[in-house]
Amino acid sequence: MSARGNLFIVSAPSGAGKSSLIAALLQDKPADMQVSVSHTTRAPRPGETNGQHYHFVSVDQFKGLIAEGAFFEWAEVFGNYYGTSRHAVEDTLARGIDVFLDIDWQGAQQVRKLMPEAIGVFILPPSKTELERRLTGRGQDSAEVIASRMAKAVSEMSHYNEYDYVIVNDDFDSALADLRAIIRAARLSCAGQARTHSDMLNDLLAE
Amino acid sequence: MSARGNLFIVSAPSGAGKSSLIAALLQDKPADMQVSVSHTTRAPRPGETNGQHYHFVSVDQFKGLIAEGAFFEWAEVFGNYYGTSRHAVEDTLARGIDVFLDIDWQGAQQVRKLMPEAIGVFILPPSKTELERRLTGRGQDSAEVIASRMAKAVSEMSHYNEYDYVIVNDDFDSALADLRAIIRAARLSCAGQARTHSDMLNDLLAE
Repeated sequence: MSARGNLFIVSAPSGAGKSSLIAALLQDKPADMQVSVSHTTRAPRPGETNGQHYHFVSVDQFKGLIAEGAFFEWAEVFGNYYGTSRHAVEDTLARGIDVFLDIDWQGAQQVRKLMPEAIGVFILPPSKTELERRLTGRGQDSAEVIASRMAKAVSEMSHYNEYDYVIVNDDFDSALADLRAIIRAARLSCAGQARTHSDMLNDLLAE
Repeated sequence: MSARGNLFIVSAPSGAGKSSLIAALLQDKPADMQVSVSHTTRAPRPGETNGQHYHFVSVDQFKGLIAEGAFFEWAEVFGNYYGTSRHAVEDTLARGIDVFLDIDWQGAQQVRKLMPEAIGVFILPPSKTELERRLTGRGQDSAEVIASRMAKAVSEMSHYNEYDYVIVNDDFDSALADLRAIIRAARLSCAGQARTHSDMLNDLLAE
């Protein structure tokens, strides 16, 4: 038997820095981790590539995949569908690769039902003032839009205690080191190590 | 509310390098971790200091402490008593300091009954050959003594799966980084973070 990857659910309110943390984690393209690429029906934004950022599909295609039970979790957000291919995730884990699901608390609840061993990580901003600064700092939205985004952030954050780990992203490097520690520790779990090192354990425990 | 330390139970067969790993971890005297100093009735060995390596007490004193319920766990090993003061451990945890209990699987079972939230870490050598080399390498014992030590090591290792984490000490620096990751991740647990950052969470979650 060989190592099996761990499934990490990473959630955060907008403005907590989740995307930057995941990007930094995967920057050097580690062979043993990857982010799950979701399916979506929304239009690609400038710079987004099909198959890398998302699998872009039509609403009909998406509904067909739902009917086939192809999704690990899926959701409709602001009129667009988003979903995670169950087969792709399980195949990647079986190859010993950790998979990161970048999803919200609702998707997290769906995944947890199917895979209770998934490890949930919630990322928080260090303060409401800093969150407001980060959400306003993008400078392209009205006060009304920012207020609505803040309300949505507070609603997302109210689910932090459904996760195994909480990272406060005050200092970026420290938050990244936190995330790396969680991933490293997960690989050291007794069940994981028993699987990874089964031959060694048989040797050690022989009388 | 402020941070509470985590209690780590660290066990290993003789020759796995547990003492060296704990010594390396505490080398720079970090303010937020310390090893629990056990009580024992055995005689001090050369270089051992009372209160630092052990609290050296008489058998009568030890039995008195047992009667008072002063021990978190205690055991008799080769005619000597060893025990961990419950009060000292709990007081240290309350001050936000992680405590390491360097005890065997029997002590670990006793501690787990009293504190199920204790985090168990088991350290393994990379192979039986390497374990034999390490146990023989000390060069001061007969073949019989070494064989008995090997049998004791196998017996201890048979309890590895009662622990939360398993570290394979093949490369020392890597094993030390594993231990540090487990400690860091433990501080990020949702319950721990909720306690450490309760004011911040109240601010973030206010409507």
